[in-house]
Amino acid sequence: MLMDLFDRLFPINRSITGDGVRQSLRILGEIVPIRQREYSTGTECFDWTVPKEWNAREAYVKDSQGRKLIDFADSNLHLMGYSVPFRGSVSREELLEHLHTRPDLPNAIPYMMSYYKENWGFCIEHDRLPEFTDERYEVVIDSELKDGHMTIGEGFIQGASDEEILLSTYVCHPSMAINELSGPLVQTMVYRYLLQKKDLKYSYRFLYLPETIGSLLYLSQHGEELKRRVAAGFVVTCAGHGESFTYKKSKRGDTLSDKAAIHVLKQSGKPYKVVDWNPFGSDERQYCSEGFKLPMGSLMRTMYGEYPEYHTSLDNRSLISEEALLESVQMYVDVIETLEANETYECTHVHGEPKLDKRGLYPYTGGNRTDAEKRRIAAVTNLIAFSDGFADLIDIAEKLNVMGKDLRDPALLLEQHGLLRNVNVVDRLDLAAHWG
Amino acid sequence: MLMDLFDRLFPINRSITGDGVRQSLRILGEIVPIRQREYSTGTECFDWTVPKEWNAREAYVKDSQGRKLIDFADSNLHLMGYSVPFRGSVSREELLEHLHTRPDLPNAIPYMMSYYKENWGFCIEHDRLPEFTDERYEVVIDSELKDGHMTIGEGFIQGASDEEILLSTYVCHPSMAINELSGPLVQTMVYRYLLQKKDLKYSYRFLYLPETIGSLLYLSQHGEELKRRVAAGFVVTCAGHGESFTYKKSKRGDTLSDKAAIHVLKQSGKPYKVVDWNPFGSDERQYCSEGFKLPMGSLMRTMYGEYPEYHTSLDNRSLISEEALLESVQMYVDVIETLEANETYECTHVHGEPKLDKRGLYPYTGGNRTDAEKRRIAAVTNLIAFSDGFADLIDIAEKLNVMGKDLRDPALLLEQHGLLRNVNVVDRLDLAAHWG
Amino acid sequence: MLMDLFDRLFPINRSITGDGVRQSLRILGEIVPIRQREYSTGTECFDWTVPKEWNAREAYVKDSQGRKLIDFADSNLHLMGYSVPFRGSVSREELLEHLHTRPDLPNAIPYMMSYYKENWGFCIEHDRLPEFTDERYEVVIDSELKDGHMTIGEGFIQGASDEEILLSTYVCHPSMAINELSGPLVQTMVYRYLLQKKDLKYSYRFLYLPETIGSLLYLSQHGEELKRRVAAGFVVTCAGHGESFTYKKSKRGDTLSDKAAIHVLKQSGKPYKVVDWNPFGSDERQYCSEGFKLPMGSLMRTMYGEYPEYHTSLDNRSLISEEALLESVQMYVDVIETLEANETYECTHVHGEPKLDKRGLYPYTGGNRTDAEKRRIAAVTNLIAFSDGFADLIDIAEKLNVMGKDLRDPALLLEQHGLLRNVNVVDRLDLAAHWG
Repeated sequence: MLMDLFDRLFPINRSITGDGVRQSLRILGEIVPIRQREYSTGTECFDWTVPKEWNAREAYVKDSQGRKLIDFADSNLHLMGYSVPFRGSVSREELLEHLHTRPDLPNAIPYMMSYYKENWGFCIEHDRLPEFTDERYEVVIDSELKDGHMTIGEGFIQGASDEEILLSTYVCHPSMAINELSGPLVQTMVYRYLLQKKDLKYSYRFLYLPETIGSLLYLSQHGEELKRRVAAGFVVTCAGHGESFTYKKSKRGDTLSDKAAIHVLKQSGKPYKVVDWNPFGSDERQYCSEGFKLPMGSLMRTMYGEYPEYHTSLDNRSLISEEALLESVQMYVDVIETLEANETYECTHVHGEPKLDKRGLYPYTGGNRTDAEKRRIAAVTNLIAFSDGFADLIDIAEKLNVMGKDLRDPALLLEQHGLLRNVNVVDRLDLAAHWG
Repeated sequence: MLMDLFDRLFPINRSITGDGVRQSLRILGEIVPIRQREYSTGTECFDWTVPKEWNAREAYVKDSQGRKLIDFADSNLHLMGYSVPFRGSVSREELLEHLHTRPDLPNAIPYMMSYYKENWGFCIEHDRLPEFTDERYEVVIDSELKDGHMTIGEGFIQGASDEEILLSTYVCHPSMAINELSGPLVQTMVYRYLLQKKDLKYSYRFLYLPETIGSLLYLSQHGEELKRRVAAGFVVTCAGHGESFTYKKSKRGDTLSDKAAIHVLKQSGKPYKVVDWNPFGSDERQYCSEGFKLPMGSLMRTMYGEYPEYHTSLDNRSLISEEALLESVQMYVDVIETLEANETYECTHVHGEPKLDKRGLYPYTGGNRTDAEKRRIAAVTNLIAFSDGFADLIDIAEKLNVMGKDLRDPALLLEQHGLLRNVNVVDRLDLAAHWG
Repeated sequence: MLMDLFDRLFPINRSITGDGVRQSLRILGEIVPIRQREYSTGTECFDWTVPKEWNAREAYVKDSQGRKLIDFADSNLHLMGYSVPFRGSVSREELLEHLHTRPDLPNAIPYMMSYYKENWGFCIEHDRLPEFTDERYEVVIDSELKDGHMTIGEGFIQGASDEEILLSTYVCHPSMAINELSGPLVQTMVYRYLLQKKDLKYSYRFLYLPETIGSLLYLSQHGEELKRRVAAGFVVTCAGHGESFTYKKSKRGDTLSDKAAIHVLKQSGKPYKVVDWNPFGSDERQYCSEGFKLPMGSLMRTMYGEYPEYHTSLDNRSLISEEALLESVQMYVDVIETLEANETYECTHVHGEPKLDKRGLYPYTGGNRTDAEKRRIAAVTNLIAFSDGFADLIDIAEKLNVMGKDLRDPALLLEQHGLLRNVNVVDRLDLAAHWG
């Protein structure tokens, strides 16, 4: 089902504006509720402005015999994004000024765009340049660049608290697989999973944006609210390829997002690496800017720029797999369940250890115990010892080298017995009151 | 002499209450003064209560031919600790419900107890189970479980200051060698050594307790006083076996106890490892609980749970040696002498270096020097350079990679010359005034 | 030219006072302006006092046949520094009490002195002791030890700010090459280089002192001023020998000096090691004493005490090279240029990234870029991302693994575009106003 969805989304000509975005959001909206919001050309967002809306119907280059040497219908990567309308006969020299290739990757169509400067261009395989031997060519670009709108998709699940987890992905790239279709696909599966869960502690927000300008627009309208509400969050991208996971930390580097993601990766037993935040990535560049410093990391597999096919036609279906996508979904779910389970407790018996056997929490007689019994006793005893009102369950799990969410049930048991007191609850109620 | 003492103590049937404890303390009291204190059954200590007093005279299981298959007289480990009185004929099935073995260690009698739930039981080698082929057995347990007292032993040496070093060991295990007899033996030898010392800076307290309930009782009566007085301390246990030392840190992990013990182990040149505090150990679980957070570490050799014979009849004389016990005594003495030597100084000449030659502390002319001279000059020069009123002698010794107590004499020399000022003294006088 | 200078300075008989110092400063003063200051015998500096002035004209030991066995004219190391005048016949036994050798380095004349206790002595190769077979010897020391002056050389370059970089070297050793002539030579070349620079941000002070007593004297007169003015500084010594650089940190260990020097060494690609401050070195012992804690490190090659020829006649021209000296000069210049370039900026656009293409700072269209373009774009983007008003250019360069001073031009460009604000300027103006 995931790959069917992929196959429907892949051929659509997405850009930062235009009907490709709307169509993609409609298809994903069959799976999860996505509200489309439209923002007019010219809307200011900090140092930036929403550009004109762009749509393309047809585009080709014909030689003097009338053969189509390049055709947008074959691959939407052939047309440079935001190419202005053009129709005319051009010399070989003039054409070559508008032809983009990747000499280092000669069988790939490069992905190019010129959002903020009006221009036109075609992208082809470098190996095909020798075909362009004629003196003159007919160029047709039947596109439209005019005042219109930019589209942003948004989903939301209300939890017990107004504190929220923010997932953000982008929908502005034409036919490429790792970057970007793996992002919206994985985010949508995570969203669908959470829709089925009851008793969520956090609220969840899912953004589907045109990269950069979309997150800037959203921050310009909701940034202050996000600063108050976002407890953790991730930019979902590059989630379909490679054996190893990559976690890019938030700019602060020690946020709850970072702690939970790194903890889960470590406990997963799967290969992974952690990289520091840097300003060469996706929307975490905006979310983590000094004015917002949102706790936004990015949990990826092989990341942008680290595979040779990046930003070319070679980043296609053959590079990704349903298995890898689903494993990424599971990793996000594990991180989210860890965040849901995570609480900070304070042991109510501070003078020596509380007596556990009289509460049925410890066997009266020593002896041979099952492994499950041993784990339960270990969890209970450690939770009592290390719940000091500061260390949360993830901190304690790190110390014990166990999965944080596995401490949830023993913690709740001890809370029922009055041995642990949840020191988060008050804050959460306060926040809820604050946000009504 | 140490092994003679061991041989007198080993056969005694100790438990958390009863005459075995009293008899053991009397024997140790021949070496050092130990005051026995009695606490009534029912005395509350935080979440716990002192249980009934238990004593056992005789206990056996006979088969239908009247042969004693199990006899307490052979090993006090055969009778489960705190077994209630019982006398009667039982079926094979009923007997087996009360028989405890260790299938993973088939030639060992396991150590079992049921302090807080009335029950009876016998412990035998797993290999001997096939001997129990009869249909019925005669069981006799001539024990006594009734209101009485729990006994705690305490020794004390008054030093110049009321700040104290606390050593604590436990005397509640029947015939086992590493855990526990090595503990009381090593503590007693350290106590004896300190009795001969004059001019002790710290006071010294030595507790001989039933594990857990004993330290809880002591803390419930003297915990607040200990919080004000204890500068450093150690739970003395598992000190007779293994090539390598183990230091278990206090819960805070950076106390004076931890600093001194790790420093001495490092300088000793002997193999050692350091482990973090955790709630699976001995009385440091109580001493380090959040309400007290006493600076109690534990300096051991091979520790509980890390040798297969732990808590069985195989933990016997063959595993320990007088040499290992005495080496542990020496390590404790070195730690204590390091604490005694440790002071914090401030150099009185802060503008450049003081001139040492005019005070006879440095040769006027360079030239060939003996190693001892070089060490003395190095110590004097470093003490002047690094005594900033914050770094103590252990800190400076760590920086110089020398034994902390070796800096004591050069420091006193510099103090006599007025070049160092001891910044601890005022605090110590204050404390003494406070405690009168 | 550097080795010519070396050859003129080498034979001079320097000590902590006397004409040798004055003559050496005059020779260096041909290259750079050095003001000589004179301080009277008896001037107090903290715990020390300026000693009498010492000069030596002639000194020898003759055997009974009138042969000169030792002659100051052959090497000024033969005469112990500060030897008092003496003329007379002495027995072999008495002579040997005044003869110093190095049995561990039998072909070396040791370097000896007795500044603060009146005495006389000669130093010779240990191998030559068998030549002293006569019963009596004629000893002549035509020296002068009387009230006079101690000489200190000082240079200064006024920069835009009164904050200053302090370089300090010593000129009190007789004929030795690594320790000490490499120090004054390298410092003088750095001084000469800076004299040619315009628009220096910092002021620069260059001290040429007799070791220890000279820095104590200077601190006693100008220490409080230095505390207010010195932003960074280095003791220049042992700069002419060895493949590897050595950086000895300031006592605080995290000063701007330490940060800049270690950063430059790391980026240089040359072998180096970093050692902690300790009280066995040169004038950083005084500069870093608790009363001043100046940020003085020491950037050396093979350091004092780490080569066997140290403080003997074997520390001569053969050990050093013009190439090594000039490489040291370049390393100091790199450190200084890094300090000059280092500023702290704050990005003025904190809400998302500023739009760079509309300012000509980023290409409108993606595509193939030169390495220089990539580096420029990377620098600009990183500076915007990491300039948070706290991280300075060295911090950012460390993060990016590039040379700090290479970030200067991109930072100035961004400052011109109003995207970065220099947060140091105000402080610097304030300081300048303060010092008027």
